[in-house]
Amino acid sequence: MPHKIEVIATEEAFCTPEIYKRTKELVGQPGLSRSLELMAKTVFGESPQSAYLKERLFDLGEGRLKEMREHGVDRQVISLTSPGVQALGADVAVGLAREANDMLAEAIKNHPSKFAGLTAVYPLDVMEAAREVERGATQLGLKGVIVNSHTAGLYLDDPRFRDFLAAAEAYSMPIYLHPREPSPGMEQPYVDYGLFFAGWGFAAETGLHAMRLIMSGRLDEFPGLRIILGHLGEGLPYWMKRIDNRYKLQASLGNGNPIKELPSFYFNRNFWITTSGMEDPAALRLCLENVPNDRIMFAGDFPYEDPRGSAEMVRSTVTDPSLLHRIFEGTATGLFGLNREQ
Amino acid sequence: MPHKIEVIATEEAFCTPEIYKRTKELVGQPGLSRSLELMAKTVFGESPQSAYLKERLFDLGEGRLKEMREHGVDRQVISLTSPGVQALGADVAVGLAREANDMLAEAIKNHPSKFAGLTAVYPLDVMEAAREVERGATQLGLKGVIVNSHTAGLYLDDPRFRDFLAAAEAYSMPIYLHPREPSPGMEQPYVDYGLFFAGWGFAAETGLHAMRLIMSGRLDEFPGLRIILGHLGEGLPYWMKRIDNRYKLQASLGNGNPIKELPSFYFNRNFWITTSGMEDPAALRLCLENVPNDRIMFAGDFPYEDPRGSAEMVRSTVTDPSLLHRIFEGTATGLFGLNREQ
Repeated sequence: MPHKIEVIATEEAFCTPEIYKRTKELVGQPGLSRSLELMAKTVFGESPQSAYLKERLFDLGEGRLKEMREHGVDRQVISLTSPGVQALGADVAVGLAREANDMLAEAIKNHPSKFAGLTAVYPLDVMEAAREVERGATQLGLKGVIVNSHTAGLYLDDPRFRDFLAAAEAYSMPIYLHPREPSPGMEQPYVDYGLFFAGWGFAAETGLHAMRLIMSGRLDEFPGLRIILGHLGEGLPYWMKRIDNRYKLQASLGNGNPIKELPSFYFNRNFWITTSGMEDPAALRLCLENVPNDRIMFAGDFPYEDPRGSAEMVRSTVTDPSLLHRIFEGTATGLFGLNREQ
Repeated sequence: MPHKIEVIATEEAFCTPEIYKRTKELVGQPGLSRSLELMAKTVFGESPQSAYLKERLFDLGEGRLKEMREHGVDRQVISLTSPGVQALGADVAVGLAREANDMLAEAIKNHPSKFAGLTAVYPLDVMEAAREVERGATQLGLKGVIVNSHTAGLYLDDPRFRDFLAAAEAYSMPIYLHPREPSPGMEQPYVDYGLFFAGWGFAAETGLHAMRLIMSGRLDEFPGLRIILGHLGEGLPYWMKRIDNRYKLQASLGNGNPIKELPSFYFNRNFWITTSGMEDPAALRLCLENVPNDRIMFAGDFPYEDPRGSAEMVRSTVTDPSLLHRIFEGTATGLFGLNREQ
C-alpha cells in the first residue's frame, strides 16, 4: 500500500426535508405501531438533540464535508436514514425514494471523491423497487441498496420480494440491511423502557431479518446476493457456532428447514459487516476470529454517532497494516466498486 | 487450590413424567401460541431424538451419574426443563412445581455431593411462587430458582411479580433466567423456519427479558437480586458498550428511563453468566474481557448438549489455573452456597 489509507465510512445517513417532515407527521396517525410512533416522536422530535441530528441529516455539502475532515473520514457511503420511505404510505413512498436518490446522486456528482451512495427503495412496490435498483446502478452511479429492515412487517425473505432480490443480484448491488424499530408482529415487549430503540430492539429486529434470509433458503435461490449488516453483524458473529449447532439438533427433532447448507455457510458467503456504533475492541476481536477478514468494514454511523469512537476502536484493536487497510478502505472499495468514478 | 478442580455444571435439565406428559398434550389446545405448539411438537415429540432426551430428562439417578462420569462433570445444578410449568394452566402448575421440587430434593438427598438444584415456580401465582422460593431455600435445600423466561407473555419486571423478586432477594436465591420460545407478543416473525428455537429465538426472548429487568428500574428496587443467564449472557456481553452508548442518546432525545445508573452498572452488579450451549472460544474471550471474571460459570446444558463441548472450549481458552478453578467450581460454589450440605 504505497498511499495513505483512505478512511471510508459505510453507514452514514442523510434525509430529505420532505421525508423528514412526513416521518414526523406519522405521530398520532391511526393504525401506527407503537414503537414507530415512539421513533417518530423521539428521533424526529423537538429536543435539541433532534435539531442537531436534523441539521446534519439534511446537509449533503460543506457542513458534512467539514465534519468528515474533523472526524478523519475521507469518504462516506451515504444512505437514506431509517426508516426512510419504508414507514410511509405506498402513495408517496416510491416518489420520495426516487427524489432522495436523485438528490443523493447530485451530491455525489458534486463531490465524487468524497461521497458515494446507496439506493433507497420502497420494497412493497416490488417491481418499482427492482426498477429503482436498476436506475441506481445504471443511471445514478449508486453503489448498493439501503433497506431499513422490515416494510409494514414484511421481511425480504417473503416470496413477494423475489424480483427485488433478483435485481440486486443482477446489478451487483449489495443490500445494506439497516436497523429500524421492531416490526408490528414482535414489537409488543419492546415498547416499554425504550427497548425498541438502538440499544436493544434495533439489533433484535435486524438480526432476525438476516436470520430469516439465511433460514428461508432465499440465499440458495440468489447465491450472489451480498448483504451488509452494521453494528458488527447485529449479533450474528457471537451466535454463529450455536446457530449451526442448534440447527442440527432442530433437524434431528424433525423440525427441518429448506436450506442446503449450515447457516454459517450462508453467513460466510453472503454477508459483510461494518463497525457502525460499536466501540468495543473485544467485539471486533471476536469478529476478526469468526468472520472472514475481508468482510469487515469501517462505518461511522454519522450523525448518530461520533465516527471517531468506532475509528479509534479499530485502530486500537488492529495492528496489522494490511488488515487495517482492508477494514478502512480495501473491502469497501471492492464491495461497492468505489473507484469506478474517480 | 490443593484439590483437583471440581467440575460443576450449572444449567442441567430434568423433567417429571407428569409435566412432560402435559407439555406434550398442549399440542392442538385452543389459544396456544404457535411457537409453543411447535416447541411441544418437536422437543416433546415423537422423533428418536425426543426419546433420547426424554429418557435423560426423567433420570435423576444412576443413568445421569454414569453420563456425568463420562462427561467429566462432578456435580450438576439441576433445574426443571423449559418451559416447565410456566406453559401449563394455573390449575395444575403450582402443584406440579411443588412435586418437581420434592422429586429433585429427594434426588439431591440421595446424592448430596453429586446433585444440587433450583426451585421451580409458577410465577403467575405470585404469593405461591414466593412461598415456594422460601420452601426451596429453607426446607428442600435448593440453591436458587429457575424461571424459564416469560409466563403467559409476562416478564419479571411486571409490577405484579414484586413479591416474588423480594422473596428471591430475601432468601439469597439466585434466579436462573432460562430460555423458552418467544412470548406471544413477539413471536410472529419467529414462527417461520424454526426461528423460535434455540438457534435464535431463545436468546432473543431471554436477552430481552434480562434487558427488561435492567431498564425497568426493578434492580434499583431489589439491588441484591442475582440473575443468571446461560449461553454466555444471551448476547448482552456483546452489546453492553452499545447499550450504554445508545441509552445516553435516547436520554438526550427525551425518551428517558427510570433507572439510576447506566445499564452496564446493573449487568455488572446483578448478573452471572454460564457457558451453556456455547462452544466458541472467541465468545468466551469476549466475556472474559467484558464481564467480571468472577461472574462466569461452566454449564453443560445436559441433555440438550454434550457438556464436553462447552468444557473443552473452556479448557482450550483459559490457561490461568485460578481462573479455570473459578469458572468450573469457585464461582458456582460461592453463588449457590454449594458446600453447605457436604
